[in-house]
Amino acid sequence: MLGIERSQKTSGMRIVLVAVLLIVATCIGGNVSAQDLKSWKDGAVKQSIIDFVAAVTDRDSPSFVPVQDRIAVFDNDGTLWCEQPYYFQLAFAFDRVKAMADEHPQWQQDPVMKAALSGDVKTIAEGGEEAVVKVVMESHAGMTTEQFDAIVSDWIASAKHPVTGRRYQDMVYQPMVELLDYLRKHDFQTWIVSGGGMEFMRPWATQRYGVPTNQIIGSTIELRYQLQDGVPQLLRLPKLAFIDDKEGKPVAIHRHIGRRPIAAFGNSDGDLQMLQWTAAGSGKRLAVYIHHTDAEREYAYDRKGHIGRLDKGLDEAAQRDWTVVDMKQDWLTVFPTLQVK
Amino acid sequence: MLGIERSQKTSGMRIVLVAVLLIVATCIGGNVSAQDLKSWKDGAVKQSIIDFVAAVTDRDSPSFVPVQDRIAVFDNDGTLWCEQPYYFQLAFAFDRVKAMADEHPQWQQDPVMKAALSGDVKTIAEGGEEAVVKVVMESHAGMTTEQFDAIVSDWIASAKHPVTGRRYQDMVYQPMVELLDYLRKHDFQTWIVSGGGMEFMRPWATQRYGVPTNQIIGSTIELRYQLQDGVPQLLRLPKLAFIDDKEGKPVAIHRHIGRRPIAAFGNSDGDLQMLQWTAAGSGKRLAVYIHHTDAEREYAYDRKGHIGRLDKGLDEAAQRDWTVVDMKQDWLTVFPTLQVK
Repeated sequence: MLGIERSQKTSGMRIVLVAVLLIVATCIGGNVSAQDLKSWKDGAVKQSIIDFVAAVTDRDSPSFVPVQDRIAVFDNDGTLWCEQPYYFQLAFAFDRVKAMADEHPQWQQDPVMKAALSGDVKTIAEGGEEAVVKVVMESHAGMTTEQFDAIVSDWIASAKHPVTGRRYQDMVYQPMVELLDYLRKHDFQTWIVSGGGMEFMRPWATQRYGVPTNQIIGSTIELRYQLQDGVPQLLRLPKLAFIDDKEGKPVAIHRHIGRRPIAAFGNSDGDLQMLQWTAAGSGKRLAVYIHHTDAEREYAYDRKGHIGRLDKGLDEAAQRDWTVVDMKQDWLTVFPTLQVK
Repeated sequence: MLGIERSQKTSGMRIVLVAVLLIVATCIGGNVSAQDLKSWKDGAVKQSIIDFVAAVTDRDSPSFVPVQDRIAVFDNDGTLWCEQPYYFQLAFAFDRVKAMADEHPQWQQDPVMKAALSGDVKTIAEGGEEAVVKVVMESHAGMTTEQFDAIVSDWIASAKHPVTGRRYQDMVYQPMVELLDYLRKHDFQTWIVSGGGMEFMRPWATQRYGVPTNQIIGSTIELRYQLQDGVPQLLRLPKLAFIDDKEGKPVAIHRHIGRRPIAAFGNSDGDLQMLQWTAAGSGKRLAVYIHHTDAEREYAYDRKGHIGRLDKGLDEAAQRDWTVVDMKQDWLTVFPTLQVK
């Protein structure tokens, strides 16, 4: 994708010139420029990524992979952005519940919804998946897809993290944003395969990560097509359609991408099957776990994490010699200095 | 996508030269070359397509649409290839049932499966959706996704249509293949949104229509991720997961594409919601019905078709002034002269 648009009225020569400049710029960039992966500390981990990309993109390498098969998949929560002290989508759900409270007086009689209204995460967490799903369903359904898109866009533009005070969208991981860019520069397709809601991510993740809408896959709820005064709309129903986590990730990859990725990045046991599925393909593969080891700049958790638990995955990574990113050691920066407008 | 691959060892100049040649070739091609849409007879229908493409791709037009929003969706059965005397996927199912008969002696006691074994379409048709789903589930599940891919690839390479004697893949509509090319030449993404099985289409449709795997959407069955002797696989289960027909089509479009198409092509009432959804967006839109009017070169059917019924759609097309392709009048050729190897 050279970002060129053709039009019958544009002079052919101008297009040619732009194309030449873009291509020359890319060639000069070479395989790793000073701008590539600059938030990654030089060392074995960074090198393993660079070596992998070099091997699959070098035409003379026995591991060469043609462009259409250069597919990399990324988990989102805890892999591309922070997920502590609790999933940001849950913060969104709490804010929604508060905004909708007046229209739902019955919530005052419901222990789970009352907890959500007061931001009582502990009670919700104790209620397990059932409680979380309830809060999400109550706050994420009952509107059209277009209305929901607008609600998420409004929220993400201003909502802030309770500890850092940064906007959530400024708590993406700078090294991972650079990695996405680096892979795309080498003609990879970068896909997001998240346990989070597909429609919660799409309104902002396209811009924040540079990933097209259709390459952002996540959990979904049921939609109903209907005509409202003759105008077609998709209504969001309070019922889970697909959970894009654990065993669900390879299934979603198969349906949405239809090819097996050659690189996969995750941070928890929920990503284990995605990494297994990716690593088991023939030819050179890259399976990477982001290990949260930095209590100072971010959070430190793994085998006993209340969310984003990385236990079986850590064992399997050691056993299969997968790359494990030590956030404290391998990242020079965690969050971006430059925040989005 | 200029089909250019970059490699650190390839000379930058050679790439530049190839790019320039490709771009110049495209510029010379202009908006409609003699090679474009050559199986379409000159007239109002062909012109409506050309006018639409010109309007949305001309930077100076008030209807200009940026590249990322140039999304066109196509039904498959009856729109891109023939669907008579019965869906080709049903022919595949019959052939599968015959091939699997020895392993399933119990089918001899089952009226539906016995009918399938003897190719008795009438009995299956009388059994309605339940009978069809049964035959499809028995023949399409119980193997891994990779095994199914190989089975479909083998079948499509040789299986032939009972009336024309052509291979099924040579019964695609030549004018539609040209239309797909023409749209892509103008930087459209072409997506297939079919009621047929996603995994029945993908092994051959990518090559036959020039559409990438991930842009082929269809009905799906449930998949189970499992480790077989440590090797991950996706097992096909005999249970429908999603029916990509009627109201399902806008839902699938929303999930897989995430943007509303600006052009939609169908041939039956099963495509009506997809055309409504497409046409209802803001800006210039193209909604097209392929009307089967050619009993001599193909088949003639509409309001009373036993499959591919076009009844409500025909009324709505007239009412909303959608484009209706009269296959007999508007197409110079129906099937390709050049058959695939």
